[in-house]
This record gives sequence, C-alpha cells and structure tokens, in this order.
Amino acid sequence: MKFNELKHASGALMTDQYQLTMAQLYFRMGLHEIKAQFDHFFRSNPDYGIHKAGYCINAGLDSILDWLDQVVFGKEEIQYLRSQKSSSGRQLFGDDFLHWLSNDFNAKSINLYAIAEGRVIHPNVPIHVVEGPLAVGQIIETGLLNIANYQTLIATKAARIKQSGRGQVLLEFGLRRAQSLGAIAGARAALIGGADFSSNVGASHIFGFTPKGTHAHSMVQVFLGMGEDELAAFRAYAEIYPDDCLLLVDTIDTLQSGVPNAIRAFEELKRKGHRPVGIRLDSGDLAHLSIQAAKMLNDAGFPDVSIVLSNDLDELVIWQIITQIQEEAEHYGVDPNHLLKRLTYGVGTHLITSTGNSALDGVFKLVAINQQGEWIPTLKISENEAKTLNPGNKRAWRIYDKRGKATADLVALHDEDICDQSPLELHHPTMATKRRLLDRDEIDRVERLLEPIIMSGRRVYTTPTFEHMRALRQADIDLLDHGVLRIMNPHIYHVSLSKKLWDLKQSLIKKARE
Amino acid sequence: MKFNELKHASGALMTDQYQLTMAQLYFRMGLHEIKAQFDHFFRSNPDYGIHKAGYCINAGLDSILDWLDQVVFGKEEIQYLRSQKSSSGRQLFGDDFLHWLSNDFNAKSINLYAIAEGRVIHPNVPIHVVEGPLAVGQIIETGLLNIANYQTLIATKAARIKQSGRGQVLLEFGLRRAQSLGAIAGARAALIGGADFSSNVGASHIFGFTPKGTHAHSMVQVFLGMGEDELAAFRAYAEIYPDDCLLLVDTIDTLQSGVPNAIRAFEELKRKGHRPVGIRLDSGDLAHLSIQAAKMLNDAGFPDVSIVLSNDLDELVIWQIITQIQEEAEHYGVDPNHLLKRLTYGVGTHLITSTGNSALDGVFKLVAINQQGEWIPTLKISENEAKTLNPGNKRAWRIYDKRGKATADLVALHDEDICDQSPLELHHPTMATKRRLLDRDEIDRVERLLEPIIMSGRRVYTTPTFEHMRALRQADIDLLDHGVLRIMNPHIYHVSLSKKLWDLKQSLIKKARE
Repeated sequence: MKFNELKHASGALMTDQYQLTMAQLYFRMGLHEIKAQFDHFFRSNPDYGIHKAGYCINAGLDSILDWLDQVVFGKEEIQYLRSQKSSSGRQLFGDDFLHWLSNDFNAKSINLYAIAEGRVIHPNVPIHVVEGPLAVGQIIETGLLNIANYQTLIATKAARIKQSGRGQVLLEFGLRRAQSLGAIAGARAALIGGADFSSNVGASHIFGFTPKGTHAHSMVQVFLGMGEDELAAFRAYAEIYPDDCLLLVDTIDTLQSGVPNAIRAFEELKRKGHRPVGIRLDSGDLAHLSIQAAKMLNDAGFPDVSIVLSNDLDELVIWQIITQIQEEAEHYGVDPNHLLKRLTYGVGTHLITSTGNSALDGVFKLVAINQQGEWIPTLKISENEAKTLNPGNKRAWRIYDKRGKATADLVALHDEDICDQSPLELHHPTMATKRRLLDRDEIDRVERLLEPIIMSGRRVYTTPTFEHMRALRQADIDLLDHGVLRIMNPHIYHVSLSKKLWDLKQSLIKKARE
Repeated sequence: MKFNELKHASGALMTDQYQLTMAQLYFRMGLHEIKAQFDHFFRSNPDYGIHKAGYCINAGLDSILDWLDQVVFGKEEIQYLRSQKSSSGRQLFGDDFLHWLSNDFNAKSINLYAIAEGRVIHPNVPIHVVEGPLAVGQIIETGLLNIANYQTLIATKAARIKQSGRGQVLLEFGLRRAQSLGAIAGARAALIGGADFSSNVGASHIFGFTPKGTHAHSMVQVFLGMGEDELAAFRAYAEIYPDDCLLLVDTIDTLQSGVPNAIRAFEELKRKGHRPVGIRLDSGDLAHLSIQAAKMLNDAGFPDVSIVLSNDLDELVIWQIITQIQEEAEHYGVDPNHLLKRLTYGVGTHLITSTGNSALDGVFKLVAINQQGEWIPTLKISENEAKTLNPGNKRAWRIYDKRGKATADLVALHDEDICDQSPLELHHPTMATKRRLLDRDEIDRVERLLEPIIMSGRRVYTTPTFEHMRALRQADIDLLDHGVLRIMNPHIYHVSLSKKLWDLKQSLIKKARE
C-alpha cells in the first residue's frame, strides 16, 4: 500500500466493522454517550507447548496514546463510511450518525487507567481500564487490542530470552520476518522487554537507539566472486570500520577459514592501534563452535572480543547452548564462565513473531455501565468458567509479603479499601472453596497497579524513557519468586478476587442463570 | 509511534543496519554500482507441526513496488545516518557515502522479475529476481523480505482455510491479534489468498472491499445491564439493520436463548418484508451447535439464513467441524450438505498470525555478479546441502504434463532454452543420482514463471485487480495434483534443477571446497 493510504487505514478506521455498526445502533437508541467501563486484560500467559511463561511484561501504552491522537473521523473516513451500502442498497451508516462521528466523536473523551509499560503483569488483571462514552469505548476496542496484545507478547518474549541469556546483550534482528510494518512495534516492545539494541534502522531512529549490525555472507561472496578471498573481505571491512570490526566467520568454514582469517585481520588492526570488536557465528553447532572459536581467539591474544551468536535462537536454544558450554568448554581448556560473559545473542524470527505462541489472547470487555451515576456491573457468562467476566468497576492491587516479594495480584471493586481489610481475603478466581487469608503482619505493602493516564480527556501522564521502562521491568522481575521466573513449568502466580468481587460475580451469575 | 515518525521508519530506513555498513564498504571499494543479481525464494513450505502446506500462494509484489517508491534517502534519513558514531566517536557513515545515498541512490534503478501475485509457488524457485547495482540490492533486501515473507505466508494460510472450508465464504477477523500495522498487509494477503472479506475497516477501504461485521457480545450485555433482555437487543439490531440482520446468539445460551430469540426477531423482520441474513456462533461445540441451530431455523421457516462460525478456527478445526456435521447432522434430521453450504467462516488469530508457523523462511541471496558484461555465479555453501545456494543468473519454468496438471517447476540458467531440450532432464536439487527425464510427448506445455516488472528503472507492469489475482490463484490450484493439495501430509511437488545448473553448482562447490 502507498503511504498516504496507510494513513487512512491506521487511524479511526483501524477498527472492526462491527464496532461501527454497534456504535450506530447505540447512537440511534440514544445510548452512545452513556458511560461505560471496559477492561483490557489477557487470559493466559504465552504457552510455547514445551515451555510456558510465568509472567508477562506490559508494553504498548505510549503507542496507544499516539494512536488515540489519530483516531479522528475526517473527510476521507466519513466519505468511505458513507459509501457503504446495506443489502437493500441504502446507505449503511446514516448521515445523522456520520455527523456525530465527524463532529462530536472524541477518542480521548475518556478516563484511561493503565499499568505502566515495562511492569510485570499477570492474566485476568485489568491492564488498561477505559471509562467513557459507550460508543467511544467500542470504537477504540480493536485498535487498543491490536497495539497492546502484540507489544506485550513481544516484550514478554524478549524478557524470557534476556533472562535465558543471563543478561548478556540481546540484539533484535527480526525485521525481515515480522508482519510488515508490525516490525516497528515489535522492535519497540523488544527494546522495552529485554533487547538492548535492534538491527532495524528505522525503528532505532524513531525510538532513539543506535542500530546494530556489521555485514552478511553476501559481502564475503562478493569478494569470492571477484576472485578474491575471505581474508580480503575481512581486511576491507577492518579498513573501513577499524573500531567496529565484527566479522561474520561462517561463509566458507567457521573453524578452518573464518576464525583464522578473522584473527589475521584482528592482528593487523591491533598493530594499527585499534581494538577489534568480535566475530559472529550464524550456523552450525553454536555451542561447540563458540568454544572452539574462543579457544582460538584466546590463544591468539584476543580473550575479550565478543562472540555474537545468531541463527534461529530462542530462550530454549540459548539455555541449551549455555548448558553445553558449561559441560564442554573446560574439556578444551576454555573457562565456561569467561566464555558466557563474552557472548551476545542476535534473535530474529522467534522474538519478533513469538514463535509457538504468536498472539496474546488479550480482550477488551464491557464490565459496567453507568446509570444515573451508579455503576451497574455487566456480565458475560461462559461455559468455560475461567472465561466468565469479572464484572464491575474494579481496581487492581499487588501484594508484597514480608520477604519483599510479590505474592499475589488482587482484583477488587473500585470502592473497596484493601488496606483496611485484615485478614485480607484472596479468593481463587473460579474455585468456590479456594481462598487464602493474609494477616496484616504477613503483608509488607500493597500497591495500586493502575495509574491515571487520561482523566476527562486530559492526558495526565508523561511518557517515560526506555531506560525508565527497563528499570521498572528489572525491578518487577527481581520481585518475582524464582519459581514464577522459571523458563519451563513456572509456578502459577496468584491472581485473586476480593471477597466482595467474588460475591458480586456469583450473585450475577446466579441471577443470569435464572 | 506517531504517524510522521512512522514515515521515516518505513521508507529507506526499513532496513537492517548491516545493509548500510556493507553498502558503504562497497562504495569505498568502488563496488557499489557493479551489477549483481539477487534471488528471493523460500526454502520450505509452512509446517504447522501436525500438518504442512504442499504449496504456497504468492503475495506482496504490489506492496514491494509501493515501498520502492518510498525508499528515498531524504533529509531526515541522511541526518540520522550522519548522527551515528563509530566506537571511536567518529562519524560512522562518511559524508561521501551519504552524498551518494542522497543524490545517486535510486531504489528502482534495477531490473525486477517476479512471479505474479496469487500464483502457486514452491520452495527454492526464485519469486523475485533483482538485477541491479550491488549496493541497491543490498539495501532493499530487508524490506523486500519483510513484505514478501509475511504476505505469502498469510495468502497461503488463507488458501488452506478456504480449501478446508470447501470454498464457503471466508472472513478475515484478525486485526486485534496481528502485529500492529502488520494487520493491513495481512488483510491484503488474506484477500488475495482466500478470504472473501475482512472485518478490518481501514484495510477494506484502501483495498476496495466492503468490510464485514455486525455486533459483539457487548451489545447484548448493554441491554442486559439496562434491565432489558437479549430479544430487545436483537430487535434493536433488526430495526436498525433490517436488511443486514446477522445476530450473535451465544451471549447467554445459544440454544436456549440465542437461537430462539433470533428466530423471533427474524419472524418480525419477515413480516415487515425483510430477509434476515443469519446468525453467528462464537463458542462451544460449533459443529453440534450449528446442526441444532440449523434444525431450529429450518423448523421456523428460515432454511436459507447463514450460519457464521468463529472462535479460534483454522483449517484443521474447520475440517473437523465439517466431518462432524457429516456424521451427526442426519441424526437430527438435518441435511449435512445443505448445512455445509450455508456456513461462513470467520477466522482471526490463526489466519493473521499463521499460528504454528508464524514466519516464512524467505531469503534474498546474491547469486551472481556481473564482471565486464559476464555473469559470474556466486555461491554460499552450507553444511546442510539443501541450504547451499543455487548459483548464477537463472530463470524459473513450470512444466505441465499431458493431463494438463503442473508436474514440476524447473530452475535453469538464464541462457538455457528449455523448450529445445528433449528429453528434458529434471535434476533433484541435492541428490546426485536422482533425476527425471521427460520426453517431449509427455509435456503439454512449459511456462515462464518470472515476468518483467521493472526494466532499467522503468515499471513495465500494471497492478492487477484482486479479482485477477484471485483468478490466478484458483486457476493454479486447479492445476495442482490432489496429493499436493492435501491439507495433511501433502505430496512433495517437484522442484528441479536443469542439468546445466546442476553441473555448474557441483563444479562451484568442488572449487570452493578445494
């Protein structure tokens, strides 16, 4: 698509058709401006089949705010909607409704509460809460989900990969395997969740990072094609980038050709007073090859140059590489801990698409409507109990125990004072008899998770820096139990309902079933 | 991100950093304008674990052409590149190179050959072939892959789902689960590959479709919250959309409440002279519920209204639903064939993310450089034989047998006349002794797959309509063997090398290994 077309597909029309047909219905019934509350939450952590996440990292809020600025029904949007016909050939959207969209609709005429980007989040806890005109909430549903679902999915994946790589530098390499322009949001989320840098030049530009990357196999191929050799290619690279010389060593044969040639180029650089940066391995047995390469580099007097690994990495592959290095390195006279500390991981496909769980199941649900100033909770029952909505205007809390660790998230009604309740009752979200009682003296502190972002249409929130979001992430991860952090089979973090919310939910279910 | 930021992330900077560092190296070595040939191809069909694709549907070309128009190093792009520093603090990209990018670089100064969108394509056959200045090919690699990989992945998934649904109407519902703006490209690809319509309003707008969608559970919830009932909600919908009345019937209880209420609303519509459109089922046992709903609708005199199914559908789930209907329907006095013909499928997550195989492994490889007018083939060897490049300037052909079916794709060198060779030798791509000889009289026709798109910077290609691309798709699918079309365990379609290409490849491998 052309760029100016993109503009009209990514603003107010970035929605599902049914949001607009419902909005027109509300408009005709005089319901479009009644106050409604919608909760955005996800139902389950990403599950990769043989491994599963124990937590998620929140991302997307600032992109949602940018998008809300673009949700305007301008001339082109209205013209397109006006052109739509019903089956009978009549105009599908009436001029009265289009007039309202074009003149009275304001995507920011809401209260928005949200959990900050970078924070650890858990299933069934509201992440974004929208209070506002019913038709506005409905129309912004799809775009909000589009932005938040994907960014949280990728921030989470990045956090897992970063954790698996023991905090070593993580590079996001996924542009060529992303869903088109989704790569930009993906890079953003990765940079919040755990990636240190991205190879994506455009995304690095707009988010204020330095993109990373040196050369591909094709550069060596060009030299070979001209009758020269790999060493000539490396020398050319070293000459042009003497202080950023990181060489891809597997175009011909990693250990027979690539590493020896890289060492020769490094020696020449060193003689000229430059410090070579490293090598990249992109195929073969990365654990074994990195040990052998480390040994050769050590022996040649380059014990500190980096070894960048790439090629279909994910958190499990990295975990396996580290395990193999720990078992195999000493056998070759290489200190495994020293080697692990010189590794950098470049991750493409599996990070940007979250391979194995390519979508987060985030939803945006109507939980209450306001009638004459009173919030009436709304319900959607499901045969699957876990999918039955938590009704009503709610707030989310995080409870820290005396070890200082996060022990549970609690979802309560908006007018409950959690701090007053002793013992605090944490009710299991679906099982009637399962609950946990926490005495006051078992609780270190309780924390409000939802912050005000937009109040009565006014933005009351300042976008934090990436550094800040990353610091929030690290702080929250440090507050999780080791069991919850496990890459495989994590402990299930408790997400509970307050007694009052549990009772309300049960009474509404009972009433609806009658 | 803000929309004006997006502009600068989605044009010339939609590339990986290493493309630019390599381009500068070529520039400094005086190699940036030597002619090079790059092949874009993918290595394997999408594999969903328990099922696998036997073919792909090509998509992305027109988006690539639109993107090439945007690949311009303007003021902001140059300024960003100029701001990048090497480790020593010097400017990473020199002013000489930036001057060339800004004044002499032209992303369209190439010859581009491509297979048309909508056509069936197979692994290891070049889909896009770029002949042009080395630095240009390098810089456009990432963007071309980004666009083509994803759109082909989704067009393929859509074709599979459409096939599994026996050609019934397929609706694309994935906006909320896509990778941010990737949803737009995803909708485009789905509409080429098999989806009839999309719920995505913006994408429908720019691609010239009518978006589809009626209402969500929330609409019924609003009525319940106001003390009214499901029937009131349905009546309101029927009143406002009398000729487009499709009702979601599972908010409370599909068979006890939803379908009976829908029938009541339909009867009222009918009395007013309108034709109700249908119902949508979004939870539970969709096969069983659609049989029961069909029976109730038939008994009420609505044998023709549609039944739209949604909720985590993919090609296997649809296949299973159809099988169950065929086995179960008659037991309830419902004609299974009649029921199958009134079904419509709405598919979200699994279509837009191609769940289970969320990225196509398309690559863009340097295969030849031109020296003094002669194409010198380049090679990249891999320990994995299947990943060793097919070198040289090549052309791709499709061979049809006397049944009129496509029997093989043949990759040959550009100067070979396939039509002249008898018998035609089809060499297995990796196994030395495996080949197939086709006598002239076994061949119905051979077809050139690659069409000229851009010649010497001039576009010589007119973008076809969606109708045309869909017709190409259907025609190509009809020319495939049933075995290749199988949803599970498909036959492997033959992709072969010409004898001349095989011999060249072997001699280059031998030379490189020496």
